Amino acid sequence: MALTSEATTVWTGDLKSGTGNVTLDSSTAAEFPVTWQARAVGTPNTTNPEELLGAAHSACFSMALANGLSAAGHVPDSIQTTAAITFEAGVGVVGSHLLVSAKIPGLTEEEFVAFAEDAKANCPISKALAGIPITIEAELA
Amino acid sequence: MALTSEATTVWTGDLKSGTGNVTLDSSTAAEFPVTWQARAVGTPNTTNPEELLGAAHSACFSMALANGLSAAGHVPDSIQTTAAITFEAGVGVVGSHLLVSAKIPGLTEEEFVAFAEDAKANCPISKALAGIPITIEAELA
Repeated sequence: MALTSEATTVWTGDLKSGTGNVTLDSSTAAEFPVTWQARAVGTPNTTNPEELLGAAHSACFSMALANGLSAAGHVPDSIQTTAAITFEAGVGVVGSHLLVSAKIPGLTEEEFVAFAEDAKANCPISKALAGIPITIEAELA
Repeated sequence: MALTSEATTVWTGDLKSGTGNVTLDSSTAAEFPVTWQARAVGTPNTTNPEELLGAAHSACFSMALANGLSAAGHVPDSIQTTAAITFEAGVGVVGSHLLVSAKIPGLTEEEFVAFAEDAKANCPISKALAGIPITIEAELA
């Protein structure tokens, strides 16, 4: 079974002085402004495509890790994943770095890292992101 | 110059009964809940990785199109881009479909579609998404 989820950006004006508004259409969970300024140098309260991609990647990775751990009998107390996505103007999206900290009863650090590496390789958003390098640091909290 | 943007997911529990919370850390523009249920069948007010990826792709594509048009002297009145991302459990992210409607003074439909095809091929998020097919329908409003 397949589910299609939609989000919309409405943009007015040119790239550098224009502005956009992003809505999560399928869930109606949120909407937020987006600008080039936020993408190139960072602006409080205004998002950019890389931050949104980081949200997608951190959520997908966390689900994949929770699934892998639970299937092996290690239901996680908590998994915290930060995805840090770097954008370079004129170059593009340079990479996604996953920083993972988790509370998992009864696992060694080495066992945990193996689960995290597997989730990094196989989560659906990682696979979609075949055009950029993905790196990871994972540790038990 | 490069900018790194961060977003974080905190997940508790297993995949199917667990829950997550996503925060846009760099901008602090929004936070929202995420669940497997929202990803597999859709849930109001709860997002999923594909909807967030759609937000990233629609924003990036809109910026790239605004830039291409403006550089050629056709500053857009407005560009509306919906990214529809399909997820199939057990398969992964199947593709991103961009649906674009724009108000651009003085362009023919054919000229506009050429700009849209260029933005689809060259926007940085499209390039990062090398692992999935990207399709587009674009028309002047």
